[in-house]
Amino acid sequence: MNVQQLLNLELPIIQAPMAGVQGSALAVAVSQAGGLGSLPAGMLSPEALRSELATIAAQTSKPFNVNFFCHTPPTSNAARAAAWRAVLAPYYPELGIDVTSIPAGPVRYPFSAAAAEILEDVKPAVVSFHFGLPSPELLARVRACGAKILASATMVAEACWLEAQGVDAIIAQGLEAGGHRGMFLTDDISTQVGTLALVPQIVRSVTIPVIAAGGIADAQGVAAAMALGAIGVQVGTAYMLCPEVTLSPVHRAALTSAAASHTALTNLFSGRPARGIVNRLMCELGPMHPLVPAFPLAGAAVALLRTHAESQGSGDFSPLWAGQNTSGCQELPAAELTRLLAGNV
Amino acid sequence: MNVQQLLNLELPIIQAPMAGVQGSALAVAVSQAGGLGSLPAGMLSPEALRSELATIAAQTSKPFNVNFFCHTPPTSNAARAAAWRAVLAPYYPELGIDVTSIPAGPVRYPFSAAAAEILEDVKPAVVSFHFGLPSPELLARVRACGAKILASATMVAEACWLEAQGVDAIIAQGLEAGGHRGMFLTDDISTQVGTLALVPQIVRSVTIPVIAAGGIADAQGVAAAMALGAIGVQVGTAYMLCPEVTLSPVHRAALTSAAASHTALTNLFSGRPARGIVNRLMCELGPMHPLVPAFPLAGAAVALLRTHAESQGSGDFSPLWAGQNTSGCQELPAAELTRLLAGNV
Repeated sequence: MNVQQLLNLELPIIQAPMAGVQGSALAVAVSQAGGLGSLPAGMLSPEALRSELATIAAQTSKPFNVNFFCHTPPTSNAARAAAWRAVLAPYYPELGIDVTSIPAGPVRYPFSAAAAEILEDVKPAVVSFHFGLPSPELLARVRACGAKILASATMVAEACWLEAQGVDAIIAQGLEAGGHRGMFLTDDISTQVGTLALVPQIVRSVTIPVIAAGGIADAQGVAAAMALGAIGVQVGTAYMLCPEVTLSPVHRAALTSAAASHTALTNLFSGRPARGIVNRLMCELGPMHPLVPAFPLAGAAVALLRTHAESQGSGDFSPLWAGQNTSGCQELPAAELTRLLAGNV
Repeated sequence: MNVQQLLNLELPIIQAPMAGVQGSALAVAVSQAGGLGSLPAGMLSPEALRSELATIAAQTSKPFNVNFFCHTPPTSNAARAAAWRAVLAPYYPELGIDVTSIPAGPVRYPFSAAAAEILEDVKPAVVSFHFGLPSPELLARVRACGAKILASATMVAEACWLEAQGVDAIIAQGLEAGGHRGMFLTDDISTQVGTLALVPQIVRSVTIPVIAAGGIADAQGVAAAMALGAIGVQVGTAYMLCPEVTLSPVHRAALTSAAASHTALTNLFSGRPARGIVNRLMCELGPMHPLVPAFPLAGAAVALLRTHAESQGSGDFSPLWAGQNTSGCQELPAAELTRLLAGNV
């Protein structure tokens, strides 16, 4: 079984969903090229999700993936929010921000009955989940749509749990990966393991196929992942300079500078650990802060700083998601990059 | 150029030097099997080094490697030593230890003129360095012995620096590796990168050959490293259950238990970051502590706790070095494991 057979693809390349920097355009380009394009639904309202899926369906008849977060929305905690704002307080006057009213931050939609209903209409070939899985009832509805189900594991225990829930394949997300860690059985980042160590250990521990993610940036990386026993790969960072990606100017500037060589896991921007390029906020507060509110509530207080700083051309307060291997980033159409990754030029 | 041609080996496997748990026996077994056995000299006095090298030379005519630390010995700092003892103070009464006299800890010998003199007599085929390189004068003496010179890099900048100093090959040490990080241009562990991301970036940045290390535990891992552009691999953890390794009972117990799946970088045991299985001391103090004395002075205060705890069968205070992939550890003669790693059974 290879990933082409499992998911009906021509190339063993899955484009990693990257909420906030891409929508349907990237997914369409990758799927049309023979890989698996992914639409990140984590920041889309049901209406926006339906619209984006309609756009994809109108532009490709090939398989594509819809990716969902599976977090439990936290109840807001005024004391914790205040403590976090106090940590950030020194920055507001510096940026000339009126701190009396902080608007709500970016919404992160967990998978829901509304989303399941949309999938029942659209019937995507593949659905992937991050931060665990939705409830058994919702998962059964996704399965009933006929979608193959993928989910992220960052350690062997998570992979075994996902296999027991009946997913079709595991995405083994190594420590090198950019963006949010999919970890859901622990919040201790010291448990997170490099791709080269993680993939073979998960391959040995489950009977379902394993897809490698994290640090894979070119055809050699793809070949390495296959040598470890993966049936395919999921690649995000390498796509970030493609014209189909809507990267902010500060994000693009960081990614194409020497700064990109130093990333870290940080919880400052959302409340959950995610890998991004080290910037001023991460340096000054430390990348992992004990006072951040629960995901995604941490985002609001920082988002205000981010907006003001970005309007002045500064990425000091922006989440600059990137993995540990930016050497594959190229300003190429995503279709071309997909073929390059597959060694199929 | 492959590593067999560079170092005159039959197999592309370098056994990682593991100071404290192995001596000449493991090096001889691996070299006799056609790989490159390594003698760690970091904890050997000049007399002991000479004796171990004589033992190796008597038992194999094949190439072997001698590995040295290149740290600058710190001047002792009474205030810092006292602060560190204060951190550990609660543990002494629990273990019934008289804290009035703490003996000196384990010595770590940096490469020296005395060691160079020994190499001039023994003329090993390969010499490898960790924590940078010795002075240009000492390095020139090693080169004049005819030895090929290898050195560890944990980031692209270190690899470029080593190439400029004229080493013959880079050991790219990914984050997954067990034991001490070879890092020498920074002490910020957030700069450390997984093997799958590190190797290709170093391969692209230098013109000399690259050897991959970290998380490689079986023939599939070796194949993956080769796919990334490495000419060979250095493997440590997988050898740790071999009969030629002198692992303490508590270390062996940890390595063969579920605890082995959780390692972390810790500076508690020596003063420098090293990867080991998470144990009580690492949990209770946090694996990286700001008050540890400079390498290797941190070791003394902990060594006393370790000795007492180990005498009671506890690894609570022991450095339990291991990498992030212990799935390759097998109770097999090192020669057999070397052939398995090479896919050459």
